Amino acid sequence: MTQPLFKKIVIFGVGLIGGSFALALRRVHAVTEVVGFGRSAATLQQAQQLGIIDRIGDDVASEVGDADLVVLATPVGQMAELMARIAPHLGVNTLVTDGGSTKSDVVREAYAQLGGKVAQFVPAHPIAGAEQSGAAAARAGLYQGKKVVLTPLPENTATSVARVRHAWEACGALVSELTPQQHDEVFAAVSHLPHLLSFALVHDLAQRDNRDVLLSFAASGFRDFTRIAASSPEMWRDICLANREALLLELQRYVAELNQLNAALAAGDAGKLEQTFRAARELRAGWTENQARNDV
Amino acid sequence: MTQPLFKKIVIFGVGLIGGSFALALRRVHAVTEVVGFGRSAATLQQAQQLGIIDRIGDDVASEVGDADLVVLATPVGQMAELMARIAPHLGVNTLVTDGGSTKSDVVREAYAQLGGKVAQFVPAHPIAGAEQSGAAAARAGLYQGKKVVLTPLPENTATSVARVRHAWEACGALVSELTPQQHDEVFAAVSHLPHLLSFALVHDLAQRDNRDVLLSFAASGFRDFTRIAASSPEMWRDICLANREALLLELQRYVAELNQLNAALAAGDAGKLEQTFRAARELRAGWTENQARNDV
Repeated sequence: MTQPLFKKIVIFGVGLIGGSFALALRRVHAVTEVVGFGRSAATLQQAQQLGIIDRIGDDVASEVGDADLVVLATPVGQMAELMARIAPHLGVNTLVTDGGSTKSDVVREAYAQLGGKVAQFVPAHPIAGAEQSGAAAARAGLYQGKKVVLTPLPENTATSVARVRHAWEACGALVSELTPQQHDEVFAAVSHLPHLLSFALVHDLAQRDNRDVLLSFAASGFRDFTRIAASSPEMWRDICLANREALLLELQRYVAELNQLNAALAAGDAGKLEQTFRAARELRAGWTENQARNDV
Repeated sequence: MTQPLFKKIVIFGVGLIGGSFALALRRVHAVTEVVGFGRSAATLQQAQQLGIIDRIGDDVASEVGDADLVVLATPVGQMAELMARIAPHLGVNTLVTDGGSTKSDVVREAYAQLGGKVAQFVPAHPIAGAEQSGAAAARAGLYQGKKVVLTPLPENTATSVARVRHAWEACGALVSELTPQQHDEVFAAVSHLPHLLSFALVHDLAQRDNRDVLLSFAASGFRDFTRIAASSPEMWRDICLANREALLLELQRYVAELNQLNAALAAGDAGKLEQTFRAARELRAGWTENQARNDV
């Protein structure tokens, strides 16, 4: 037997993201002990019963000092406070990573809250599983074949980045690296904007007196287009606000695109409509379906 | 054995829509003879080999005179010419129906081209199968449990409407009735607009130098949101133009919705964002999945 990658991991937030991370590392014997913290005692007990964590943490100060890795798997809105709590107690060899869907804001908080220990924080965004939540949804295979984006900081040592990368790779993930700003621009375009657009369409229908008639004729195109409008309102409120600048740029760009289509439609410009649809179809058809196995 | 519903059906366009209609009626022995017309000799031969049609039609004039039912299952753009061709030869007992995705324009052409025989035309829109095409894709079960919308004309007799209704019900479809204008307003909202929005998003990405990087991080939310952007450019060009007025109203309404979200986002209005997302989520979650079995 080789030595496990980590002797002790402390996870804040033992739901789908944090819980699946623990289960995945346990499956490949990459961790000896997992300690969990969270806001709900019931969730922590459930996580323990499900074998996600070995122990429910009691005292943050004493637990994070000798941990090899601290994982921040809470909603992004809670991370600043959490970072402030752990900062004074992090051991010199303790690495920190997270599972937040936005990165510029998390990194900004890391600089503010972790101060001189920011080099120990290697930010990450696993592209998986936003539609379920809770410890009961956690599973060892969640990250298998899925993408995880690391957004390393200039302060990180190569060794620290490699260690966090190995952790995610041990979960079965395909790890890439972007800067925090690149990350947020990419996900504004391919994830955050589509969510906003899908919410907007359904909200528009929800305002109408004849919404039931309309929905009774909605079919599979509508079903797929609006699937992401059933996502968590709180989570997406936070993501939109956290990535506000990049998302506003995308939204304005998209409205300009719609204004062009509106003009083409009003003018009866068949060629322009077909050309637009054809370019879209070609790109979409060429996008390989195996990339789509990653969950948003 | 009861008498078949129809002795002779003539189908123009023996692809997915027309071919599946024929196969469905054959399966329940509701038709004795099916004659096919189309622009491609190869497709007609394939349809005959697949048992969709009994014969390839040669002379429109002689075939439509003694037909019980003529089905116009071509793209909507070809229907006016087709109506003009069949009009002089339709027998007094020959009914006509169609499979077009828009109705006001088809009805307008029917009045123009069929003249005094317009009472024989009962317009229909089967909500099924826009993503595949061709005779090879036709199947007897395509309409099983799917919605078909009839948009009867004031000139239609109750008997004519009932007979066309029975034909679609014999295919397994759930038949509703709307006016042509109601139909087009409903489908502008729940089908045509989502298609336009999906095409627009992918077209926007297609214009960018970094589109490959962006797409490499696109996941299942993007996959579902953009599935309909892989639809036929020609077909959707025609649908958008045919339903231009209703679609323009929907598009302008949607842009107004986006402008509101843009303002909320720019102002950091968390409450407004959450409220919008929550209303959307509630409507979407309440929309029963069994309705979604209908294909657009």
